[in-house]
Amino acid sequence: MAEQKATNVHWHEGDITREHRAKILGHRGATIWFTGLSGSGKSTVAVELEGVLHEHGVLAYRLDGDNVRMGINKNLGFSAEDRTENIRRIGEVAKLFADSGIIALSSFISPYVADRDAVRELHVAAGIDFIEVFVDCSLEAAEGRDPKGLYKKARAGEIKNFTGIDDPYEAPPSAEIHLHSDQQSLDEEVAQILGELRERGIIAA
Amino acid sequence: MAEQKATNVHWHEGDITREHRAKILGHRGATIWFTGLSGSGKSTVAVELEGVLHEHGVLAYRLDGDNVRMGINKNLGFSAEDRTENIRRIGEVAKLFADSGIIALSSFISPYVADRDAVRELHVAAGIDFIEVFVDCSLEAAEGRDPKGLYKKARAGEIKNFTGIDDPYEAPPSAEIHLHSDQQSLDEEVAQILGELRERGIIAA
Repeated sequence: MAEQKATNVHWHEGDITREHRAKILGHRGATIWFTGLSGSGKSTVAVELEGVLHEHGVLAYRLDGDNVRMGINKNLGFSAEDRTENIRRIGEVAKLFADSGIIALSSFISPYVADRDAVRELHVAAGIDFIEVFVDCSLEAAEGRDPKGLYKKARAGEIKNFTGIDDPYEAPPSAEIHLHSDQQSLDEEVAQILGELRERGIIAA
Repeated sequence: MAEQKATNVHWHEGDITREHRAKILGHRGATIWFTGLSGSGKSTVAVELEGVLHEHGVLAYRLDGDNVRMGINKNLGFSAEDRTENIRRIGEVAKLFADSGIIALSSFISPYVADRDAVRELHVAAGIDFIEVFVDCSLEAAEGRDPKGLYKKARAGEIKNFTGIDDPYEAPPSAEIHLHSDQQSLDEEVAQILGELRERGIIAA
């Protein structure tokens, strides 16, 4: 923080813009949107990426089930309509974060192309970088991991409309980044994303 | 940004916490919640405060009608139920911003004590600073300014349930900061808020 200690500092240069905030932070804001099956490794790569970005002095923030489904979207269920509204709201929040200068890391199954494209459109219209990351993983591998025991419950019929079992996962036809989490190492995945951020000039080369 | 340029940096220290982010930013996150009549000067002081904080190298972000009512809350109207949901969602978004290390500046009439207290409770439960700022201004003065011509429309019956005219404004019984925007200068208002942020150790003294 600057050493300015006076309380009578004025500000007459108009609204603070993205450029002002990028100057404070040393990097631009952006939304990195992870999509993939439950158990595909979205959160794993998001957590690792957040840590590595932190090592680079880059401010990132993860949006995930823990802080969204329990918070702003706690009044939404899993009907088709509520799933769409869930992704719409997350997209709007991610956009606000990216606008503020932070790199938003969104980590949700987000199974439908139309919902993800609506979020992309929001960002494009505002001139904010949107990077869709397809965390590609075979159903067999994801179900084999089953870190939360959800596939087991879905197979037993205890969870209905479970993506990959009795609800479709629509793979992105043209994601900015295509990871293969059942073949790549975590380091390789993170390096691929960092490369994209550097190429776009979001973080320093 | 740090000069680290290797792509193979690892991060093995667990989840990034508020403390990590405060270290990058040089200040803590918090929510500053402006409440008051339409035309009381909430946005005016929020804009000035954002600029002065920027001068101090402090990252703040304003949540207001422009980026919230048109975005995440665009599917809400002005019924009692929708007004409550409007404030609930804004409170959740502000909390996420404060958690990320940013100083969130929320600038909405937010006329009901119960709605504001629910937002306060969210923050308290998460150990995040919540500073309610009552932008106190007589109805006469606010209506005299009428910057958006809304009072005129409300008096003409063209807008229903307008706060201060045919819908109540519930003044905060114990706001952390009580401004008198019809008596204080903008500088005095900003200085009062900066003093509170310093006293709490959110920004450097």
